[in-house]
Amino acid sequence: MAYSDSDSRSSGPSGRNTDSGTQRLETFSDGVFAIAITLLIIEIGVPHIGRGEDLADELAGLWASYGAYVLSFVMIGIYWANHHSLFKLYLRTDHIFLMLNVFFLMAVAFLPFPTAVLGEYLEDSAERQTAVTFYVLGLLLPAVGWLTIWLYGIWRDLLDNRLVPDYVRFLTIQYGLSISTYAFALALSFLSPVASLVIVVSLTLLYLLPPRKPRYLT
Amino acid sequence: MAYSDSDSRSSGPSGRNTDSGTQRLETFSDGVFAIAITLLIIEIGVPHIGRGEDLADELAGLWASYGAYVLSFVMIGIYWANHHSLFKLYLRTDHIFLMLNVFFLMAVAFLPFPTAVLGEYLEDSAERQTAVTFYVLGLLLPAVGWLTIWLYGIWRDLLDNRLVPDYVRFLTIQYGLSISTYAFALALSFLSPVASLVIVVSLTLLYLLPPRKPRYLT
Amino acid sequence: MAYSDSDSRSSGPSGRNTDSGTQRLETFSDGVFAIAITLLIIEIGVPHIGRGEDLADELAGLWASYGAYVLSFVMIGIYWANHHSLFKLYLRTDHIFLMLNVFFLMAVAFLPFPTAVLGEYLEDSAERQTAVTFYVLGLLLPAVGWLTIWLYGIWRDLLDNRLVPDYVRFLTIQYGLSISTYAFALALSFLSPVASLVIVVSLTLLYLLPPRKPRYLT
Amino acid sequence: MAYSDSDSRSSGPSGRNTDSGTQRLETFSDGVFAIAITLLIIEIGVPHIGRGEDLADELAGLWASYGAYVLSFVMIGIYWANHHSLFKLYLRTDHIFLMLNVFFLMAVAFLPFPTAVLGEYLEDSAERQTAVTFYVLGLLLPAVGWLTIWLYGIWRDLLDNRLVPDYVRFLTIQYGLSISTYAFALALSFLSPVASLVIVVSLTLLYLLPPRKPRYLT
Repeated sequence: MAYSDSDSRSSGPSGRNTDSGTQRLETFSDGVFAIAITLLIIEIGVPHIGRGEDLADELAGLWASYGAYVLSFVMIGIYWANHHSLFKLYLRTDHIFLMLNVFFLMAVAFLPFPTAVLGEYLEDSAERQTAVTFYVLGLLLPAVGWLTIWLYGIWRDLLDNRLVPDYVRFLTIQYGLSISTYAFALALSFLSPVASLVIVVSLTLLYLLPPRKPRYLT
Repeated sequence: MAYSDSDSRSSGPSGRNTDSGTQRLETFSDGVFAIAITLLIIEIGVPHIGRGEDLADELAGLWASYGAYVLSFVMIGIYWANHHSLFKLYLRTDHIFLMLNVFFLMAVAFLPFPTAVLGEYLEDSAERQTAVTFYVLGLLLPAVGWLTIWLYGIWRDLLDNRLVPDYVRFLTIQYGLSISTYAFALALSFLSPVASLVIVVSLTLLYLLPPRKPRYLT
Repeated sequence: MAYSDSDSRSSGPSGRNTDSGTQRLETFSDGVFAIAITLLIIEIGVPHIGRGEDLADELAGLWASYGAYVLSFVMIGIYWANHHSLFKLYLRTDHIFLMLNVFFLMAVAFLPFPTAVLGEYLEDSAERQTAVTFYVLGLLLPAVGWLTIWLYGIWRDLLDNRLVPDYVRFLTIQYGLSISTYAFALALSFLSPVASLVIVVSLTLLYLLPPRKPRYLT
Repeated sequence: MAYSDSDSRSSGPSGRNTDSGTQRLETFSDGVFAIAITLLIIEIGVPHIGRGEDLADELAGLWASYGAYVLSFVMIGIYWANHHSLFKLYLRTDHIFLMLNVFFLMAVAFLPFPTAVLGEYLEDSAERQTAVTFYVLGLLLPAVGWLTIWLYGIWRDLLDNRLVPDYVRFLTIQYGLSISTYAFALALSFLSPVASLVIVVSLTLLYLLPPRKPRYLT
């Protein structure tokens, strides 16, 4: 049927979601990922050197900004790759699913701001804790949005029903553990900002590993 | 015919508009939506703390900017979702239709500016009224552009003629009511900026509800 | 042949250029158009009001920036629409064609800068002439890039050979006249910046009219 | 099979990689290229003229920024064109390949920053050396990322196995020579920033020439 609405339910195991609503959601999401990831560099301002200052020193002094840039770039890159894998699992979408995605993207697009705050205040011993707490909060938000999309999809039965239940359970646990880790890092940031960052970086490195492949009932 | 111009009229009920002109218009519009929505965060500058100031206080003090960010993000997200639904209803386009879209996108791409003004001056009691008035004006403009596109499409008979007339009338009324509400909120902003914002936020929440699905003659 | 290189020549009247090189060039160009058009707003900074200043006055005082925003937005929008029409006329591309496009896009992506200069200095009677000259130069550059692409395409025989020669000649004359007009406006800007802007705005309005449709030999 | 994972291996000579994972990687990469290339202009700030200063002088005084803009624009444009050609050579991808691409894009998206530094400090005789060294380093990083992707693809046998080995060897040598040239220019920048820039510009001009076309076993 040419004029399928976005709630249309593809029946049967051969149904692949080719509804342009989903395609356009993916394209839009990719656009936001690509723009947010590329905007990160804009937040690093060219240093203005005063008397007795040296450009090389100033550029080297931006190490915290470079580090925050790399970390946030990899984070958004991982979200992009996972978003892509995830959306292969859905057979259909609905309006609320779409809106939850908008909220998730809102959290992703917000990331350049805490990244800039972290880059600017990580070296400032008086403000380091605040900067790290704010940054970890900035990482927690899209993780919460992600889990919300996932749980909503399960609840509303949007997933391909040929997926092996074990695989779905595995992902639910993985996403839940990620959020718990971010929440723990958030709490820890008040005590030890450095330890909090170590946890967050380690979790990111784990996500660089190849994801488990979806398994389907045969 | 391979070289159809953008005025080409698909006749018959099976005609779905697959003209690359429309596709490219949608892609371009999606690009502008994605960029405008992601640029919103750029307008929130990293606070520079002076003596006796505290980063945590400064970050918390940006609540108006966060609120304006969320509101404008959701607004543009809704326009994106609705633009997508709307374009499914058209069977063909013409040059003026294209140009009206450019003007609509101009109003959407303008939104980051009043958003930044709102975020910066909402707390300033002397300038709150101006900031809210300017922001509501910034919301009224794309709504006017949207209705113009819609009415032009009806006038030039660009819509799929299998659409139930009641559905077309319903949308016309809905868009007209939205503009009236923005216009009312604009006038109200001079008397009570807070009440004006409440109306605007409420209207946005209404648009988060699933849209009525298009109905076709059978 | 699956692995056609970007020089591949489609022979015969049924050959439509579906080479992904061209598609990707169009997508890339659309991306640059969409980003450049949306970045225009970033150049308008939120006014910082000092003592005795009023936000409403300051926002109203940005009229030159709003005007420059609208003019450049429409300009880029027209380039986008025409780029789309133009690329329907080509049967094939080559490497130099690709590189000429990169240079054309460079000129388009540069436009936000002279737009910002115009918006900031149009009201400054001492600098108005410089700002207008710089802006008209900013409009002349993409027009030169455009004509270069066009003439290169004719020279290298990249156009669909079924196009009526009269139509090709018409476009050549049109593009040549546009450049002449910009060049004249550039010279005039030294004498009368306002008259120069009037000419440039009028030319833009002309381009809002529907373009002549391509005609093919039958 | 509808639910191919991104590791899927297309067997046989007719296998063209149409896996949406690769397509989406290309689209995402193109997005980052388009955004990074268009953001370059944002780094050139509108000059604020003080007493006794002249806008025309100030705009002309930005020649180093214009030059850096042109050079980086062409660089990213070449990467875009080559990325496109390169990805035609792959039959399949895997997760690490994807992540290496994210790191390559990170280096490309970083380029606007050293470009801005070069534009601002090229004229400053005390800081010229630092600015050029930093910029050449900014060019070396994506070149290293590029070669890493290439070598990984060879190692993991991701390339189309019908490619003539001589062609693969030719590209490996070309990429290796490019990196050597950047590394040499980096070392040279400490002695003579101008000579270093001349080398970098010359290498860029070489890349404007048409690339050698892929050759396949028949």
